[in-house]
Parts: sequence; structure tokens; C-alpha cells
Amino acid sequence: MSDMKPSVAFIGLGIMGRHMAGHIFAAGHSLRIYNRSPGSAQALRGRGAVLCDSAGAAAAEADIVITMVGLPSDVDGIYLGAGGIVEAARAGAVLIDMTTSSPSLAVRIAAAAAARGLSALDAPVSGGEFGARDARLSIMVGGDAGALERVMPVLRLMGSTITHMGEAGAGQHAKLANQTVIAGTMLGIAEGLAYAGRVGLDLEKMLAVLGGGVANGALLAALGPKMIAGDFTAGFFIEHFVKDMGLAHAEAAARGLPLPGLESARSQYAKLMSGGAARDGTQALLKAYAAPPKAEL
Amino acid sequence: MSDMKPSVAFIGLGIMGRHMAGHIFAAGHSLRIYNRSPGSAQALRGRGAVLCDSAGAAAAEADIVITMVGLPSDVDGIYLGAGGIVEAARAGAVLIDMTTSSPSLAVRIAAAAAARGLSALDAPVSGGEFGARDARLSIMVGGDAGALERVMPVLRLMGSTITHMGEAGAGQHAKLANQTVIAGTMLGIAEGLAYAGRVGLDLEKMLAVLGGGVANGALLAALGPKMIAGDFTAGFFIEHFVKDMGLAHAEAAARGLPLPGLESARSQYAKLMSGGAARDGTQALLKAYAAPPKAEL
Repeated sequence: MSDMKPSVAFIGLGIMGRHMAGHIFAAGHSLRIYNRSPGSAQALRGRGAVLCDSAGAAAAEADIVITMVGLPSDVDGIYLGAGGIVEAARAGAVLIDMTTSSPSLAVRIAAAAAARGLSALDAPVSGGEFGARDARLSIMVGGDAGALERVMPVLRLMGSTITHMGEAGAGQHAKLANQTVIAGTMLGIAEGLAYAGRVGLDLEKMLAVLGGGVANGALLAALGPKMIAGDFTAGFFIEHFVKDMGLAHAEAAARGLPLPGLESARSQYAKLMSGGAARDGTQALLKAYAAPPKAEL
Repeated sequence: MSDMKPSVAFIGLGIMGRHMAGHIFAAGHSLRIYNRSPGSAQALRGRGAVLCDSAGAAAAEADIVITMVGLPSDVDGIYLGAGGIVEAARAGAVLIDMTTSSPSLAVRIAAAAAARGLSALDAPVSGGEFGARDARLSIMVGGDAGALERVMPVLRLMGSTITHMGEAGAGQHAKLANQTVIAGTMLGIAEGLAYAGRVGLDLEKMLAVLGGGVANGALLAALGPKMIAGDFTAGFFIEHFVKDMGLAHAEAAARGLPLPGLESARSQYAKLMSGGAARDGTQALLKAYAAPPKAEL
């Protein structure tokens, strides 16, 4: 990289990616962008970013390549597929996957990148859309410490807390551990409020009592009021959470570690998804505890 | 009650009860005490409280009778048994059960009390030993609002937040909803840290990442460090938590409300109890996720 700001390719301009890419562009980096549906890229293009017609094309002329896409299969395709990022990136580039994805895929990408003289980091985030918008994400990083140091100024444009968790895959593992804590916590909040509702307690009072005691926490404060108001608008989609819990389950199961709480949460959310709630927010878990409609006779 | 401070009987001087009774005595109320094992009563007796030889005897000459005992069966016995509190208390007395106990038992006690011209409140607490010691308990009250108003000055000697949840039993219901939230949250924390440990992450870093994101909360802050340090000393005994979860389960089941997260937590804790961990603190849940010892060949 020269004394000029390193050029960046940003792939995946969804709810979070568009904010993250916007911060990088605003800081004066030249920016090449790609998104599967080009509509989402128009705003940044209008401001001067270069819209490319594939992930590989975006990556080909960048010092730093950042991806923020959907599923592990998407990550696999854009990195390891023919004409993909690993094949197209120029020597010395640092590749950063910020998607929540599979730790073992992160290891495979890092190995394929190393074989071509590239560095790859897995760097999933927590903080949601608001964290992305306000550049206050918490970023959990796996991979080479030297590569992380080189891209740190760019990561700081997106996040307020950046933690090097260990070698390739460790960032993804940390994110999955985080999602596992959230899964149990959501289960507790939804079940406690469902109980309170079913026995006829005033839910506003109940929330105040919970918030004043050891049951209090960031999720209760953010989502408890939405739950009892029946506001299921998504801050974080149920379908993404189910993906994350599936990844955590697979990694734990491969190590002979049963996680019954995670499985309870996953099964409750999966039921909601098959009932059409995939794009509801995770606080819609409360709906899984609604009283069944009275049978008609 | 006269212009003098109402006299108080306090029954149950365990880890929390002794602090709570101490605050009342220190505020200048005359105090009659009873504890099943009289050893725990000696400190207060030495300061001038009157040690009685039964719950009924303590209650017989008090304006306010407070109980803080162990199991619902204990509560049942001291209130409704022959020579018990309801039989022995004088007309106009207010009876306050602060044990975490059965909501339906609270309703029965309130009815039996009303039949004798007494008022009974259910008023379980959250905040643990430190909350009791520092008079910062959160007290959830069920029963007559007028009776609550009369005893409010005494409750304020023990708690910083006092919430009237509704009619008899509503205090217990609120506490059980609170314990249900805690059950899921503990499951999440233990499983997230178990996952992180099994995949080889640095647990101090993991805790810092969790604490900086939406997984953060009072339980993570208080018990996460103890979990990863292997400090399982009890702030709150597993056996008491299992009792509370059993009560919540029974009330929910009676209303056709399945709570799979609560059941996962209850079953993990019950396994620990049968392994000898009844008097460990609830943070010992992490032990339920330890790798099994390698089979010897």
C-alpha cells in the first residue's frame, strides 16, 4: 500500500453493508462496489463509487476487499468460485469477510488466500443496523495479526470495538458464541413475558420490575418494550438469526457439545419462520407463546 | 396500629432474612423472631429481639408478621398449620410472606387470613444476599393495596423498589416470571461461554466482547467472570433456583403454556443437583457443559 489511502472494494450493500461502505467512502478511500441486485448500489455510485459487475471485478483493483453478504454459500461462491475474489485479488491485498459465516469456511478461505500471497481475515460484527449506521459496531476478528494491523484504520471507520480473537475462524467462533448467549437470553425474555401475560400481570409493570433487577440487560431494554407492544418490525431478521444458530449448532455438534438452550431457541424460531415470520425481528419470539386459538366445534 | 412504630414478627433468619430483620430492628421496631434452627437467631437476640419458640408465638403479639423461609411446604405449615400464623395473629395484623413460593398457596393464605380479619400479602424479592444486606431489594407485592400502604414504611427498610403487581398471588407470579427470564439468560451465558471454551477462544476476551454488545446484562457482568474463573461459590443456591423454576413450570403447565427454554434450564440444573451441586451458585451451570472425561480403555 502506498502513502495514499488504500483503495477498497466493498461487496454486499444490504441494510448494514451500505452504511459501512458509506463510511469508508466518506473517509476518502477510492471505492469499488458490487451488489447482487444493483439497485442497492445506486446511491453510492451516485456519490462517485465505481460499480463493478462482479465481486472478482471489484476485488481486482483494490488493496482491501470487504464482503458483507448473506449466507455461507454466498461467501463460498464469491471468494472461492471461478473468477472469485481469491483468484482476482492482486498480490498483497487483505480480504475481510464481515458476514456472519462458517468458521471452517473462514479457515478454507484463509488457506486459499495464503496460497496466492493474500491475507484473509474473518471479521463478523455485532451491533445491527444502528451500529453500522453510527459506526459503532463491535468487530470480532480472526486471522493474521499483521494483516489486521494494516487494515485497522479502515475497520475503525465502521466499528468502535475491534477485538483480535485468534487465528482464522476465531472471529466467526466469537460471533457464534455471542449469538448463543443471545439465543438463551431471548428465550428467557420471551418466556418470562409470556408467563406474565398468561397469568394476567400488567406487562408494563412487569417490564419495569425486570429492568430494575438482575434480569436486566441490553436485549430486555431494547426489545422488551417492542415485544409487549406487539411491534415486530425487524432490527435483526429471524431468518438471519436462524442461520447463525444453525452454524453454532453445527460447530458445537461437531465437537460433541450439546447446547439444549440453543436448540430450544432454534426450534422456536424455526417454527415462527415456517409460519411466515422470517422477516420479522427477533423480538417476534413472543408470538411462539401465544395461546392457541380455541378449537371450533 | 398506634402512633408508636408497629411491632414486627420476623420468621426465617437465613442468609437473607437475618439482614432484612436486622434493618427493621435497627429502625426501632420492637421485634419478635423465630427460626427453625435457633442458632441463626442469636445475633439479633443479643441485640434485644425477643426469640420465640414457634412461628405462631412470634406472630401472636405483632402488628406485622414477616416470613422468609425455604419451601412452599414450609410456608404452608407456618401459616395454615395448627397454632400457625393465621390462627395466632391478632385482629388487624398484616401478614407478609417474602419467600418465593406458590401463587396459589398465596391465594389460599390470603383467603384464610381474610376469614379471620387479617390481611395477607405475598411479597417475594429479588436482589439476593447483597440486596438484602444493603436494603436494596426489589419487592413484588400481591394482595390488598390498603394493607400494602400500611406496611410500606417497613418494606422500605428492606427494599428500594416496591411494586404492587395486583391481587393475592400476583407478587409470586411476577417473581416466577423474573426467574423464567433469568433461567433462559443463564442458559445463554453458560452455553455461549461453553462454546467459546470448546473451540479454544480466550475466555477473558470473549467476556469483554460479550459485555460490549447486546449480549450484555446484569447477570453476565456479575456471574460471567465467576464462571470463567471456576468460582462456583453461591450467591444464589442452585437448589433454590430449581425450586423456583419448578413453581414456574407448574403454573405455566396448568395454563397450557409450554416453556421449552425454562425446561432446558431446569433439566440442566437438576442434573447438576443430582451430581452434588445443590449448594453451588447458579453460575455453576457452566459445569453442565464440561467435556466428558475420556473413556479409559
